[in-house]
Amino acid sequence: MAITVQVDLSTLLTAIEACGIVAFACSGFIEAHRKNMDVVGVFTVGFITAFGGGTLRDLLLDQRPLFWVARQEYAVLVFAMAIIITPFNRYLRSSVSEKIIIFADALGLGLFSVLGTSIAKDAGMPVFVCVMMGVITGIFGGVLRDVLCNEIPLVLRRGHLYATCSFAGCWIYLLLNWLKAPEPAAVGVGIVVTCVIRLLSVRYNLRLPG
Amino acid sequence: MAITVQVDLSTLLTAIEACGIVAFACSGFIEAHRKNMDVVGVFTVGFITAFGGGTLRDLLLDQRPLFWVARQEYAVLVFAMAIIITPFNRYLRSSVSEKIIIFADALGLGLFSVLGTSIAKDAGMPVFVCVMMGVITGIFGGVLRDVLCNEIPLVLRRGHLYATCSFAGCWIYLLLNWLKAPEPAAVGVGIVVTCVIRLLSVRYNLRLPG
Amino acid sequence: MAITVQVDLSTLLTAIEACGIVAFACSGFIEAHRKNMDVVGVFTVGFITAFGGGTLRDLLLDQRPLFWVARQEYAVLVFAMAIIITPFNRYLRSSVSEKIIIFADALGLGLFSVLGTSIAKDAGMPVFVCVMMGVITGIFGGVLRDVLCNEIPLVLRRGHLYATCSFAGCWIYLLLNWLKAPEPAAVGVGIVVTCVIRLLSVRYNLRLPG
Repeated sequence: MAITVQVDLSTLLTAIEACGIVAFACSGFIEAHRKNMDVVGVFTVGFITAFGGGTLRDLLLDQRPLFWVARQEYAVLVFAMAIIITPFNRYLRSSVSEKIIIFADALGLGLFSVLGTSIAKDAGMPVFVCVMMGVITGIFGGVLRDVLCNEIPLVLRRGHLYATCSFAGCWIYLLLNWLKAPEPAAVGVGIVVTCVIRLLSVRYNLRLPG
Repeated sequence: MAITVQVDLSTLLTAIEACGIVAFACSGFIEAHRKNMDVVGVFTVGFITAFGGGTLRDLLLDQRPLFWVARQEYAVLVFAMAIIITPFNRYLRSSVSEKIIIFADALGLGLFSVLGTSIAKDAGMPVFVCVMMGVITGIFGGVLRDVLCNEIPLVLRRGHLYATCSFAGCWIYLLLNWLKAPEPAAVGVGIVVTCVIRLLSVRYNLRLPG
Repeated sequence: MAITVQVDLSTLLTAIEACGIVAFACSGFIEAHRKNMDVVGVFTVGFITAFGGGTLRDLLLDQRPLFWVARQEYAVLVFAMAIIITPFNRYLRSSVSEKIIIFADALGLGLFSVLGTSIAKDAGMPVFVCVMMGVITGIFGGVLRDVLCNEIPLVLRRGHLYATCSFAGCWIYLLLNWLKAPEPAAVGVGIVVTCVIRLLSVRYNLRLPG
């Protein structure tokens, strides 16, 4: 029984992970297309958006193998997506696909943030550093995307909440963990909190003071 | 007696270190404010300005824990400063505070450069690489700040001497070290040389040929 | 006999390596000059263009010492070049020197890509990751150069083939390797393929679809 639940959770996390990677990569593809890049640029920016945050975290924590090295199939997936999507890149910017991407991106932001925090915790980092590693995992792909595309990073500018959602989710996860909540519950609540704040912020145009 | 001096030196270095971190962070806050970032951007840019150089050095030398991981209180300090200062950010750009920041920044530049060189030397790096690590520690926070803010890095443009001061201070430190000068003297002279050249450059508008 | 060939190949590779480093550094010098940087900026951008790709690969693979640490003389060479060339920087942009640089750059691109792939293979990376490491080694110096100079990276924009040549050369090298071809032949063919595609692309204005 317990094993069944375990497997289901792991399947669910893998599904969320795949959603998040696809959404992050797509936001990179869109930005690269906007800058008139060719398929090399589209792949590079998409790849860095999807894996840049986790890679930076692993460099800072000195952890190997990197996620996309251990799971080569994700790198190949983004490569295949870049080739297939490049001719149809403009359709990614339709209002329907933008809504889907915002939703999948929120899920990915939650998952990557909480997993980043969890990895830092397992590496014995102090608590504030754990949260920072979670937020870095969640947002730095987007930061690197914008740096490559010669823009001021969107998540640093006054706009809808993004890093803040990740920050809240990471703290919730650590709090539940500290309260001895079972790991799946702590992970799940952390992801849901991140995701809900993010979607509320987009829906109701919530922003931080400047 | 020797112990007393030792303790005093260490206290002095800690005070200079704190000054430098605060000054570096403030220069990040100012730049982030100029780009209309919210508190997330202000913290991120301030943090990267303060710790980016040392972090890059540690990544290149493969040293862990990172400075701001081992001394979590500095990361929390910059976080608290970002929250407290954000509403008053424009006052950082007054002429009085700019003078204070230039002075504290010069101290920080000297300290970080000399310490970076010293860490590279202890890691067994060849001499030119030691100097490069010192300069990277001193200036790369500012370089990353400007990259994040979508500007050509200030220290690379024709302007007052900055990297050059760090470069001179690092060589002086290594020279004194090679001459078997006691470590505190070598560190102290390296910092003072860096700091004096920097302040003279600002005062008398000294520049490198282009 | 075999030893003679071995030595010759190694001498040839060192010559290509030096050519590539000089060409990469010069493309950094030219860009820094265009942005009105002083000698500090010229050195920094030249250095990062020459060694940025290999450094990023070594960080990702967690390999030390870094290439320019183990071979300090290359770092000193770029430093000396920056000082000597800065006053004459505008001559680097003449049509003759641009042709020489394109040729030497193509050689360097081929060598760095194939060597990067080979290093990743020796580190036990999966095959697609090996190719990515090769391409990163070849092109990321140029990407970082453009990021520092506040431009969208040239190799990501629609233009002559560059990353694509590196990509092809890396696969050819791995294919020959898999077919049990002797290492020198695999390396040589990989470099030649990269180089030829690159020069054909410049000569006949070949581009990828956007």
